[in-house]
Amino acid sequence: MTYCVGMLVDAGLVMIADTRTNAGVDDISVYRKLHVLADAPDRLVYAASSGNLSITQAVLAGLAEGLPPREHDGPLRTVASMPSMFRVAQLVGEAVHACRAEVAELLEASQLSPSCSMLVGGRVGKGPLALYRIYSEGNFIACMREQPFLQIGETKYGKPILDRALQVDTPLEEVVKVGLISFDSTLRSNLAVGRPLDLVVVPADPARAIIQRRIGSDDVYFNDLSARWSLMLNEARATIPDPPFMLG
Amino acid sequence: MTYCVGMLVDAGLVMIADTRTNAGVDDISVYRKLHVLADAPDRLVYAASSGNLSITQAVLAGLAEGLPPREHDGPLRTVASMPSMFRVAQLVGEAVHACRAEVAELLEASQLSPSCSMLVGGRVGKGPLALYRIYSEGNFIACMREQPFLQIGETKYGKPILDRALQVDTPLEEVVKVGLISFDSTLRSNLAVGRPLDLVVVPADPARAIIQRRIGSDDVYFNDLSARWSLMLNEARATIPDPPFMLG
Repeated sequence: MTYCVGMLVDAGLVMIADTRTNAGVDDISVYRKLHVLADAPDRLVYAASSGNLSITQAVLAGLAEGLPPREHDGPLRTVASMPSMFRVAQLVGEAVHACRAEVAELLEASQLSPSCSMLVGGRVGKGPLALYRIYSEGNFIACMREQPFLQIGETKYGKPILDRALQVDTPLEEVVKVGLISFDSTLRSNLAVGRPLDLVVVPADPARAIIQRRIGSDDVYFNDLSARWSLMLNEARATIPDPPFMLG
Repeated sequence: MTYCVGMLVDAGLVMIADTRTNAGVDDISVYRKLHVLADAPDRLVYAASSGNLSITQAVLAGLAEGLPPREHDGPLRTVASMPSMFRVAQLVGEAVHACRAEVAELLEASQLSPSCSMLVGGRVGKGPLALYRIYSEGNFIACMREQPFLQIGETKYGKPILDRALQVDTPLEEVVKVGLISFDSTLRSNLAVGRPLDLVVVPADPARAIIQRRIGSDDVYFNDLSARWSLMLNEARATIPDPPFMLG
């Protein structure tokens, strides 16, 4: 399993992904799930992936190679050649659809799920930061201001804190904290999601530095955040008055 | 969908269930999912149910009527005639298995899930309080001291707080609070779980009163707990230091 979250607020874009891949509980590996699709002066595009690892890798390889031209003798279509984030999302969706179609029948014959979801976030040219969720079928949705996050994989454990604490005007430092708390809740409740985590922060302000960071099991800040959060949850619970119907 | 939780600690047993039943988002009803299977001087048994409503109702009707005798001319087997909570769980499992088998083929032909899970908790005779989770297949597991809760239905949103805040020595008032916070997180993140909630508290100490309570959408205590919890989560997050890698 996997957990990835993308958060898009006024102050910027934050994407976090875990790295645990498992084929059963006795076959656990570390695979990077947060990928750089483009890093050039005119564009910066990241993708986080969830689902069948062979499909994900085929999608990434296909995108790196370029998708077949639309017209005879046309150029291969790559993330680098797309004019907008919308077109990038469309291209990734097309790659997901094609790779999945290739192996779906084989996998389903063995009762394996041919799922592959992706979060695609970043910026093309002078366009705004954008974030999309690509479904297994290749269709996609954009992250909107009313709910400024998208999740894939094992999403439910970490959703309550996002629902409560994340708004479009949340400062970027707080967004990172909320994202890490969301991961902490998930890590704690589900073995199929594990550290290291990969984190990328793209501030809306181009003057601020882009941050890429791997958070390992010995990460002092994350361990402190996790311990504080546990302590404060228990303190918070203790300060809630006892149920009046249980008095006496 | 549904969310039910049972918590079994040294101080007693707490069971909470929501009441929302939906066949699609445009067909939502209120159905009681926390049921009294026995309330007599020598036994008190509650069941919370999740899954297909027609199967659940058939299970309850079957248990009320009594399951077929084991031997020719033997008595019908009911919750009232079982010598222990273990035997009660076994009887409920048998009823679930039988009811599910009757309709599974019909439901699967229409791509409907013939699932039915139950939590069964209570006490028989002078035995200790016990809590079981009955699976769709009729097999079951007991709640153990290492993780003193069992959940069915839409379990993931509300699991992180249970994982963090519930131990076997948690006082009963705190157990109720933790359970309600777990529900609050679920209600907030998933429309398929809704109030009113049904709550039952069975203290281990027979001198303490048993509490049965319905918590509606206008419940002052629950609304206060929900507001305080949201506020405190955001305060807690704010007091966590900013990520050091984002300074400067």
